[in-house]
Amino acid sequence: MENIAPFELTQEYLERFREGVESKDDAFIRNSLESARHEDVSALLEEFNAEESKYILGLLEKEVASDVIEDLDDDTRIKFFTVFQPEEIAEYIEGIETDDAADILNDLPVKIREEVIANLGNDEKANFIIELLRYDEDCAGGLMAKELIKANVNWNVVQCIDEIRRQAENVEKIYSVYVVDDNDKLLGRVSLKEIILARSSAKIADIYNSEIIAVYTYQKEEEIADLMQKYDLEAAPVVNVQGKLVGRITVDDIIDVITEMADQERKLMAGIAEDVEEDDSVWVLSRARLPWLIIGLLGGVIGARFIGFFEEDLLRVASLAFFIPLIIATGGNVGIQSSALVVQSLAAISIFESSIWQKFIKTVFVAILNGVVLAGLVYVFVFFSYSSTLAFVVSIALFSVVMLASLMGTMVPLLFNKLGFNPALASGPFITTTIDLLGLAVYFTVAHLLYSF
Amino acid sequence: MENIAPFELTQEYLERFREGVESKDDAFIRNSLESARHEDVSALLEEFNAEESKYILGLLEKEVASDVIEDLDDDTRIKFFTVFQPEEIAEYIEGIETDDAADILNDLPVKIREEVIANLGNDEKANFIIELLRYDEDCAGGLMAKELIKANVNWNVVQCIDEIRRQAENVEKIYSVYVVDDNDKLLGRVSLKEIILARSSAKIADIYNSEIIAVYTYQKEEEIADLMQKYDLEAAPVVNVQGKLVGRITVDDIIDVITEMADQERKLMAGIAEDVEEDDSVWVLSRARLPWLIIGLLGGVIGARFIGFFEEDLLRVASLAFFIPLIIATGGNVGIQSSALVVQSLAAISIFESSIWQKFIKTVFVAILNGVVLAGLVYVFVFFSYSSTLAFVVSIALFSVVMLASLMGTMVPLLFNKLGFNPALASGPFITTTIDLLGLAVYFTVAHLLYSF
Repeated sequence: MENIAPFELTQEYLERFREGVESKDDAFIRNSLESARHEDVSALLEEFNAEESKYILGLLEKEVASDVIEDLDDDTRIKFFTVFQPEEIAEYIEGIETDDAADILNDLPVKIREEVIANLGNDEKANFIIELLRYDEDCAGGLMAKELIKANVNWNVVQCIDEIRRQAENVEKIYSVYVVDDNDKLLGRVSLKEIILARSSAKIADIYNSEIIAVYTYQKEEEIADLMQKYDLEAAPVVNVQGKLVGRITVDDIIDVITEMADQERKLMAGIAEDVEEDDSVWVLSRARLPWLIIGLLGGVIGARFIGFFEEDLLRVASLAFFIPLIIATGGNVGIQSSALVVQSLAAISIFESSIWQKFIKTVFVAILNGVVLAGLVYVFVFFSYSSTLAFVVSIALFSVVMLASLMGTMVPLLFNKLGFNPALASGPFITTTIDLLGLAVYFTVAHLLYSF
Repeated sequence: MENIAPFELTQEYLERFREGVESKDDAFIRNSLESARHEDVSALLEEFNAEESKYILGLLEKEVASDVIEDLDDDTRIKFFTVFQPEEIAEYIEGIETDDAADILNDLPVKIREEVIANLGNDEKANFIIELLRYDEDCAGGLMAKELIKANVNWNVVQCIDEIRRQAENVEKIYSVYVVDDNDKLLGRVSLKEIILARSSAKIADIYNSEIIAVYTYQKEEEIADLMQKYDLEAAPVVNVQGKLVGRITVDDIIDVITEMADQERKLMAGIAEDVEEDDSVWVLSRARLPWLIIGLLGGVIGARFIGFFEEDLLRVASLAFFIPLIIATGGNVGIQSSALVVQSLAAISIFESSIWQKFIKTVFVAILNGVVLAGLVYVFVFFSYSSTLAFVVSIALFSVVMLASLMGTMVPLLFNKLGFNPALASGPFITTTIDLLGLAVYFTVAHLLYSF
C-alpha cells in the first residue's frame, strides 16, 4: 500500500514548485507531479495564474491534464480558459466525461462554447454534450452523464463482457450494467458482482433484476438526492418520458448536490445574497452582504419611527428603553429556532406529513412553555430591580413576542415552501427583521396601555 | 422496468393497511408488502406502535425484516426493541451488516446488548461486532463494516472469483477487491471491472493497483468525508496502525455523515441545544430551546442594566432610544454573515490556508466598505428626520458596530475552531448576544460623549 496521503501539498513543496515553474524546469515539474493525483494538481494550480497553469498543464499527459481541469474550481477554470484557444479547450474536453464537460461548457460564452464543440474530434461525444446542454443544470438531465454500460436483454454474459471491454476506457466506474430492450427502453440492471458470478453462457434475460429505481430527466436534483440517499444507491439510471435509457447519475455528483444545498442554506440563514466564498474579492464580498444589511437597516429605521410615537412614554419612564434589546433579541432567537426546526423537517424525507394544523398546535404549546419560563424569569428580575408595573409590562410583552415569533418562525417557512421559495430564506434576516418590528409594536403597545391606567 | 416509484405510500394505503393489521389479516399484509422495498416498510412502521410492528415484522422474511429494522429511525428502533426478547433481537441482527449492527447494539442497554451478542448464532459475526463496539462512533473504526472482499496478492483471478462467490451473500456491494499480503497488510485493490476484463489465469499481483487511498481506524469522520468527497471514492479501506486491513467504509455511510454535519450546524446556528426533530415531544423541544433563550435573556438583562447608566441622557434625548433596535439588529446581521462565511471556509477542503493575518485584513476592508455604506445611508435619514447631532451619533456608532461585529464574527469562529469547538457554535445566539451588548456599549458611549459637548 502506498502512503495514505501519497502526495502532500506543503508550503515548502509549493515554494520549490514555484521556483521550478519560474525557471521553466520541465523535468523537475514532471517529476514532482508524478505521484500526485489529479485532484491534488488542481489544488496546486489554484496557486498559479492562468499562463503559468497553462504551461504546467502542457507538461502533463493529456488524460491527466483533462482530469485536472475538470477538478478545478469553476471560477479558476473560467479564468484559465481565457488564455486558451477553443481548439486547445476542445482537446482537454475530449478527456472529460460528458456530464462534467457539459457543465464546463455551460460556463463559457456561447461563441467559445460553439467553437469548442465544433473542434471536438469525437462526433458521438459532441452530440452527447449538445444533448446534455439542453437540460437545466439542476434536474436529472443536467446531472447525468452519457457514459454508461448497457446490455440488450437478448444478449448472454459473454456479449455483455465484450461490451464492458469495448467501453472500459470511456466508463471509469461501472457499478451496474443497465439492461434495455431493442428500443432502448430500460428493463433493469445486472450488477458487476452478478456478471462475475454468472456462467458465460447465461442469458442476461435470466439474470437481470427488474426491480430498479430510475429517475426521469426532468426530476429535480433535491428529489434525486433524497432518493439516492434513502435507497443507498451509488448510481441511478435516467430515463426520458418514454422510458428510454438516456444517462446515468453517479453518487459523487449527488454528494456535491447535498453539499451545495447545505451551503446555500447556510448563506440564506446568514443573509448572504450571492454565492460567494471567503476568497472572493473585497468588493464581491461586500456586495453579497449589503442587500440584507440594507433591508435590516430599513427595518431599524421603521422601528425608530415607531418608537417615536411613544416618545412621551419614554420621557416619563426612561427605563422602558432599557428592555428594548431584551425584547427584540429574544424575539429574534425564538424566530430563528422555530424556522430552523421547520426547515429541517422540510428537508427530511418523510412520507406521512403531519398536517399544518398539528404543527400549529404543537408550535403553540412549545411557545407557551418557553414563553412562561422566560416571562417568569424576567418578571422576577424586573420586579426586584425596577418596579412591579415595569415587571408586568416587560413580561407580558416578552410572552407575546415569544408567541408571535414562534408562530411566524414556523408558518413563514411553510408558506415560503408552498410558494416555491427556499424555506431557509425565512430563517435569516427576513424573519428577524420582521420579528424585531412586531416585538417593538407589542412592547410599546402593552407599555402604553398599562402606563395609561 | 418497474415503475419508478414501485411502491407508493399514500394515506389511503396506510388506512387500508391499518385495517389489515387490526384484523390480523396475515395474507393481506404479506401481499400488500410484497412489492415494497425495505426502506418503505420502515417508513410505514413509523406509523405503528411497537407491538403492531413486531407482528408485522413477524410476517416478513427474516432477511427483509432485518433490513427493515436496520432502516428504522433510531428512536423508533429503541422503542421497538422493548417488546423483543434478546434472542429475537439477535435473530434480526444476524441479517444486518456489522457496522449497522454495532451502531444498533450501541443504542441498547449494556445488559441487553451482551445478551444479544451471546445469542448470535454466527461466532465470526459476534466477534466482528465486539471489535467494532470498541471504536468511537465518529471515527473510521466506528463507521467501517467488517464485510469486504480481500484477495491474497499471490492468488490468481479464479481464486479471487471463488472468494467473491463464497462471500457474495455477506457483502452486498463489492466495488473493489482489496489486495493483502500474507500478514493481511493492505497492498492495493482490484476493481470489479478489472476482474471481469482480466484472464482467469492472470495473477492478482500483476493486475492490482497499488495507488490506493486508505484511512486509519482513528481518523475522524469529517476528515474521511472530505477525503471521499474530494477523490470521488465509493468505498475506502480502513487499516490499523500496522497497515493491516480491518474494514471498509462505504459511501452511503459518508452521505449520512455529511447530512448529519449539516444538520448539526443548522442547529448550532439557530441556537438549539439538543439533537431534536420536529416530531419530538413538546417537552423535549422546549428543553432544547430554553438554554440559549435564557442566555439571550441574560444578555438582555445585562443590556438593560447597561442602558440604565445612561438614563439621564435618555431623559434629555428620548430619540436616542429610537435607534437601539437599528444598532443591535445591524450588529447581529453583520456578525452572523461574517461567522457564516468563516464557517464555510473552514468546512471547505483547502490546502494552502491564507494566514489569519490575511483574513483579518480582508475582513477589515469588507467591514469598512459595508460600514461606510450603511452609516452613510443612516446619516442622511437621521439628518433629515431628526437632528444633525443625532445623525452623527447614530452613524458613528453604526460604523463602529459594523467593524466590531465583522471582527468578532470572523475571529470568534476561528478561535473556537482552534480550541476544538465546532465553529458553527459561534454563528448562533452566542455571537448575536455578545454583539448586542458591544453594540449598546458603543452606541451609548458615543452618544454620551457627543451630547456632553
